[in-house]
Amino acid sequence: MSFTHPLILASNSPRRQELLKQAGFSFDVFVRDFDESYPEELPAEQVAEFLAVKKNKNYRELLSEQVVITADTTVVLGHLVLNKPADHAEAFSMLKSLSDRTHRVICGVCISSPKKQVAFTEITEVTFGHISDEEINFYIEEYQPFDKAGAYGIQEWIGQTKVVSIKGSYFNVMGLPTHRVYEVLKSEFQDDI
Amino acid sequence: MSFTHPLILASNSPRRQELLKQAGFSFDVFVRDFDESYPEELPAEQVAEFLAVKKNKNYRELLSEQVVITADTTVVLGHLVLNKPADHAEAFSMLKSLSDRTHRVICGVCISSPKKQVAFTEITEVTFGHISDEEINFYIEEYQPFDKAGAYGIQEWIGQTKVVSIKGSYFNVMGLPTHRVYEVLKSEFQDDI
Repeated sequence: MSFTHPLILASNSPRRQELLKQAGFSFDVFVRDFDESYPEELPAEQVAEFLAVKKNKNYRELLSEQVVITADTTVVLGHLVLNKPADHAEAFSMLKSLSDRTHRVICGVCISSPKKQVAFTEITEVTFGHISDEEINFYIEEYQPFDKAGAYGIQEWIGQTKVVSIKGSYFNVMGLPTHRVYEVLKSEFQDDI
Repeated sequence: MSFTHPLILASNSPRRQELLKQAGFSFDVFVRDFDESYPEELPAEQVAEFLAVKKNKNYRELLSEQVVITADTTVVLGHLVLNKPADHAEAFSMLKSLSDRTHRVICGVCISSPKKQVAFTEITEVTFGHISDEEINFYIEEYQPFDKAGAYGIQEWIGQTKVVSIKGSYFNVMGLPTHRVYEVLKSEFQDDI
């Protein structure tokens, strides 16, 4: 169940690092600055994988032997991409728009070795119940969700009290579709370097 | 968002205690021995709530002012209830039966005060991908899932690498449907004692 090749997780998200560790992998974290722009005409569903592939190329040119994992998570409400909120007001408006509705959390992942590259997209539907203005303000003040796309972490208070239902992978909502990363690493990269 | 009444969680499950704490509640844990038997003719879907109500009565007679939360989780495959496995062989056989299939995790919850009692059932569907014999043995040896109905914890390695999808509440699978507990405590027990 262990992988002998050097793995690099190119993400400074502590949640992704924790998930990959709990899924049984040993890896190093390596992070480079990165231009997160994408073509405006790209459909919302394709943004995450586009960015994961773009990030991966940014690391591939520096690394030789390693297997490199990159990922990007977008929160999509209707056809609107919700990024990280800039301030309290924007977080409030995002959470207000998620209340009583179903949105999609889309994670794009790209895994590469010197020999090959595999990219995929995993989508989870998340349904929030009603969140009152008081509850939104409480959450933003207590949890400061400014580093989170869509202004929430499902593993935090608001996920535990307000998420009524999800359809798909929970860990995908946290930041990494671990079951697919495991499967792809095992079937495609186990003896690849 | 805080509740001023003394809350008792009558469960020695560390997962339930953690979930209720993260959902923002302060409470004490109080555990009594309990006869977990139920009528054989009871449909599998009704076992968890039956046991939660039975447990609750067991505490209600001892406690005066407090609000008491009891819960029971059953794992149901088809119409078969999977309890806690007695040993490695039973855990192996349970996990083998869950591989490549969808099962239901059913949590029954009962909340009572001296004045009233509310009980409910929450169901989450969990779909496992293929789990090899080697992976089953690895998981049982490393994680010793003998205190877990159905022989797995979704928050552990096997949940992260082998659960393909869920439909419903993730926290319900961990042991407590926190969104419903929050809602019921808030709407039914906030000023009840």
